[in-house]
Amino acid sequence: MKRLITHAHILTMTDEMAPLENASMIVEEDTITFIGQTPPAGEEFDEVVDMKGRLILPGWVNTHNHSAMTLLRGYADDLPLQTWLEEKMWPIEGRFGPHQVRWGSSLAVLEMIRGGTTCFADMYDHLDQVAQVVEDSGIRASLCRGVIGLGSEEEREAKRREAVQFVRDWNGKAGGRITAMMAPHAPYTCPPDYIEKIVEDATRLDVPIHIHLSETRQEVQQNVDDYGVRPVEHLERLGVFQRPTLVAHAVHVNDEEIRKLANHSVKVSHNPGSNLKLGSGIAPIPAMFKQGLKPALGTDGAASNNNLDLLEEIQLAALIHKGASEDPEAVPAATALKMGTVYGAEALFLDHSIGTLETGKKADFISVDITGPHMQPQHDLVSLLAYSASRDDVQDVFVDGVPLLRNRECLTLDEEQIRFEARRAFQKVAP
Amino acid sequence: MKRLITHAHILTMTDEMAPLENASMIVEEDTITFIGQTPPAGEEFDEVVDMKGRLILPGWVNTHNHSAMTLLRGYADDLPLQTWLEEKMWPIEGRFGPHQVRWGSSLAVLEMIRGGTTCFADMYDHLDQVAQVVEDSGIRASLCRGVIGLGSEEEREAKRREAVQFVRDWNGKAGGRITAMMAPHAPYTCPPDYIEKIVEDATRLDVPIHIHLSETRQEVQQNVDDYGVRPVEHLERLGVFQRPTLVAHAVHVNDEEIRKLANHSVKVSHNPGSNLKLGSGIAPIPAMFKQGLKPALGTDGAASNNNLDLLEEIQLAALIHKGASEDPEAVPAATALKMGTVYGAEALFLDHSIGTLETGKKADFISVDITGPHMQPQHDLVSLLAYSASRDDVQDVFVDGVPLLRNRECLTLDEEQIRFEARRAFQKVAP
Repeated sequence: MKRLITHAHILTMTDEMAPLENASMIVEEDTITFIGQTPPAGEEFDEVVDMKGRLILPGWVNTHNHSAMTLLRGYADDLPLQTWLEEKMWPIEGRFGPHQVRWGSSLAVLEMIRGGTTCFADMYDHLDQVAQVVEDSGIRASLCRGVIGLGSEEEREAKRREAVQFVRDWNGKAGGRITAMMAPHAPYTCPPDYIEKIVEDATRLDVPIHIHLSETRQEVQQNVDDYGVRPVEHLERLGVFQRPTLVAHAVHVNDEEIRKLANHSVKVSHNPGSNLKLGSGIAPIPAMFKQGLKPALGTDGAASNNNLDLLEEIQLAALIHKGASEDPEAVPAATALKMGTVYGAEALFLDHSIGTLETGKKADFISVDITGPHMQPQHDLVSLLAYSASRDDVQDVFVDGVPLLRNRECLTLDEEQIRFEARRAFQKVAP
Repeated sequence: MKRLITHAHILTMTDEMAPLENASMIVEEDTITFIGQTPPAGEEFDEVVDMKGRLILPGWVNTHNHSAMTLLRGYADDLPLQTWLEEKMWPIEGRFGPHQVRWGSSLAVLEMIRGGTTCFADMYDHLDQVAQVVEDSGIRASLCRGVIGLGSEEEREAKRREAVQFVRDWNGKAGGRITAMMAPHAPYTCPPDYIEKIVEDATRLDVPIHIHLSETRQEVQQNVDDYGVRPVEHLERLGVFQRPTLVAHAVHVNDEEIRKLANHSVKVSHNPGSNLKLGSGIAPIPAMFKQGLKPALGTDGAASNNNLDLLEEIQLAALIHKGASEDPEAVPAATALKMGTVYGAEALFLDHSIGTLETGKKADFISVDITGPHMQPQHDLVSLLAYSASRDDVQDVFVDGVPLLRNRECLTLDEEQIRFEARRAFQKVAP
């Protein structure tokens, strides 16, 4: 299959942030083979897609999610974190089986595709189900079986074996669209020796580590109480950062910890929507940039967001740090867009193949309608994306050169079935 | 004209926050005459509108805007406030004439209607143009000619006369859809004696006052330097709060000032998007609620937001105060929705006729599609609106019982003409 995309504004998200005007892109099978003003003459195409008046750019990369939690969207809100977790989330999640994960994740992937997300990271249980949804839907994902080490030795080991088996079964599958990580859930839910074992597993399997880090002030204090050090040093001592590592949240990290993370080239998934909604706080993103980190963005699960709209996270990242620091130059528009695309690809260790539109990279891209009144006049398309656009402006979504959404019609998933089954899957476990 | 709306979820935004299920609403001319499960038998209707599966609620009220500034959306971003204002905004706004205000406001009203806003407050120049757009488009508005008292005595007085004349010409016009206020721009742009004169005008005309207050830390300090007191006390001494008053921003107000505002029943327009983007800070909204204030929401102009999406302001209000205060119970979902509807009506002194859906009130309402994947499952419609919905979920918009948007088609404005003319109007003043 060889496609020519024509007449588009193309924002490649490489260092050059001015969109190419009236430009073309050639996609052969899953790969971009040309981007520029004038496509090579004399070539023949299976399809010519006229994108006149649309803006093409890399799809969003959502670097932290628990996709099955869409079933719990709005199930409990506006509660103190411990009440929310212990009285609401954990009891019902404990009743989740493969069926809930299958349909919760289907709903999540449908929502993400409709919002322009082409790649996401997921940490949950029953991961085979998520992997199957990823394979069938055509989206790209970095998946990990999140393991909590609070149960018996037997339970813990069983979970670890599951996580290892998942990596063996799925890493590199779905035509390379699925990659895998190992995921000790968090320093406060995994004993030190358990984390060390998981690091060994990750080393043996040669996969990165994905872990929650310092989401709340309380867990940092608990780490100090339990282990005498703050979480970053704790994980450093356990050898976690010897592996390529992605940490989610990093809300309560001080300057010294930020330096440590930067020294180890740790990737950070900033989840502004979830951090705000749960009252966790506002991560020190400007300080991270100063130390050379390039934070990516994630939605976290839909129970704490309450949507999976990565563009909203881009917009929150572009807004809240300016307000919190009283500095209108914090996280400029172009930076926020990079956080949602190229830095996301880096955070999932996929920047060799996605995150920018360049010859040789995978054809993961979206088109955005820029004709709406909120997108007029067009002084600056980068600013319009970062501050004015909305998820429904996304018209087309391609992953590996395959169209998943065309003119807002989802081609690979049955929306009505997913709505129905997701509702039913929840009802089966409802209290 | 007598319309029956049927089969809807109806969220009246009265104290009862549980939506009525499978409910009906009768609208006779501009007024709601029935809301409930079973409409009176034997009545005849000119139109029956089946809203099956849609959520009906009052339209959003945008309590602070400079609508013509849509022409400057994305024209300059991510700059220090003074550079942005003095080098970018003021020079080009100085070249705005009636033509720019006409088409900038048309673009604004189009965007607001498409996003579900049924009433907005505007403060700008060439207000006759804005009023004409309001009259023609069918939206509701509270308008004021914002006056800056920095020029010569002659200029100042001319502006004040214009503002007074505008009130005389337009207050109560467009079938009552237009109301007017007097608007001394801000304590730092109007000398004390000028503000006093405007208060006298407002008293004579019997209209409220709309004024910017303590948007930035710097202007508070300047007020102290110039007048020896902080802005709230300054305005109190000038008699402003003897009139019904709406203050915009109120970012930098301390507890004593909040108490003063509450004692005078001053209305507050909270503009989270603009305050964040300009790096002004985060207004102490939870403290205001504690003192009995009921802050409403505004977008501010599109040059500092950069859209006019009041639902986004609702969502920001529901998120940022939780994050900033590390309190997940700050500004719950229902409160954020009230800020965007009923408190907005109160802030514009229109709560006798709009802001809730009740028998006897004006039929200003919107319908929201709740079938999208981001709106599943439906544990809690209030939570879904406040945390998950997006502007494009708004399907229908009625003001005074007249449909302005039906199934996302705008009935009263020519979208293509507005896009074209707005672009041209900017080009005429472009540097």
